[in-house]
Amino acid sequence: MTRPAVGADHPKPEDSNELAPRFDAAGLITAVATDAATGTVLMVAHMNAEALARTLTTGEAWYWSRSRGELWHKGATSGETQRVVEVRVDCDQDAVWLKVEPQGKGAACHTGRRSCFYRRVEPDDNGGGRLVFDDAPALFDPGEVYKR
Amino acid sequence: MTRPAVGADHPKPEDSNELAPRFDAAGLITAVATDAATGTVLMVAHMNAEALARTLTTGEAWYWSRSRGELWHKGATSGETQRVVEVRVDCDQDAVWLKVEPQGKGAACHTGRRSCFYRRVEPDDNGGGRLVFDDAPALFDPGEVYKR
Repeated sequence: MTRPAVGADHPKPEDSNELAPRFDAAGLITAVATDAATGTVLMVAHMNAEALARTLTTGEAWYWSRSRGELWHKGATSGETQRVVEVRVDCDQDAVWLKVEPQGKGAACHTGRRSCFYRRVEPDDNGGGRLVFDDAPALFDPGEVYKR
Repeated sequence: MTRPAVGADHPKPEDSNELAPRFDAAGLITAVATDAATGTVLMVAHMNAEALARTLTTGEAWYWSRSRGELWHKGATSGETQRVVEVRVDCDQDAVWLKVEPQGKGAACHTGRRSCFYRRVEPDDNGGGRLVFDDAPALFDPGEVYKR
């Protein structure tokens, strides 16, 4: 991973007031979306430069779908868009945090649930664990076959 | 990315109650740590199988440091460990969410700040933006050269 040059005119990424995302070899940074009202982590996704730019200019969340290999305006087909209240960037600028207001029925997850993190891990003694479904029921039925 | 076989004995990853993380080509999943008390996103990092197993068995956060290429017991040298209150996994099991109680001085970030997300993005009209430092001051002085 290349870092920008550091010097008088090039502050360390941690000290910079310039948005200079450090995209990985695939051209992506990690994006975490939380519910602006409750703080619940809704989803973890990825953004390329175009998705980030569109998010910043439109005020709605755009991601890069790694499974489909295409730009992804979240909710464009399902109606489950995300209004972006705030965008933050981390110390080394390879991750962004979006605080969002879920629109539509309020489901961030393709399964129809409010959050993708609808299962808690109950650790066992061997470094593994069982998953417990402890979230609210899905807000809509996504159909038998999940579409992403 | 390979998915486990789906069928009667192999529910879709979304429906499974079996912890079966989908590590990427580098053997990693994304880990998001939030403050269990406030919901603030503290950091985004990565875990390999060993880091996840140690997190589940010890109740403290372990990650995989991509920059150092080694297993990373967060806070082992700095004292800024994270007590894990809850672990959740997302729909397709390639990301985990840790709710943690920061120990030590309470700094998740290597810059000495509580959260790595200490800068807000102020969008400009061109898809970029400026960064505004709007977090509380650092909890300690990490020294001139940042160590990770």
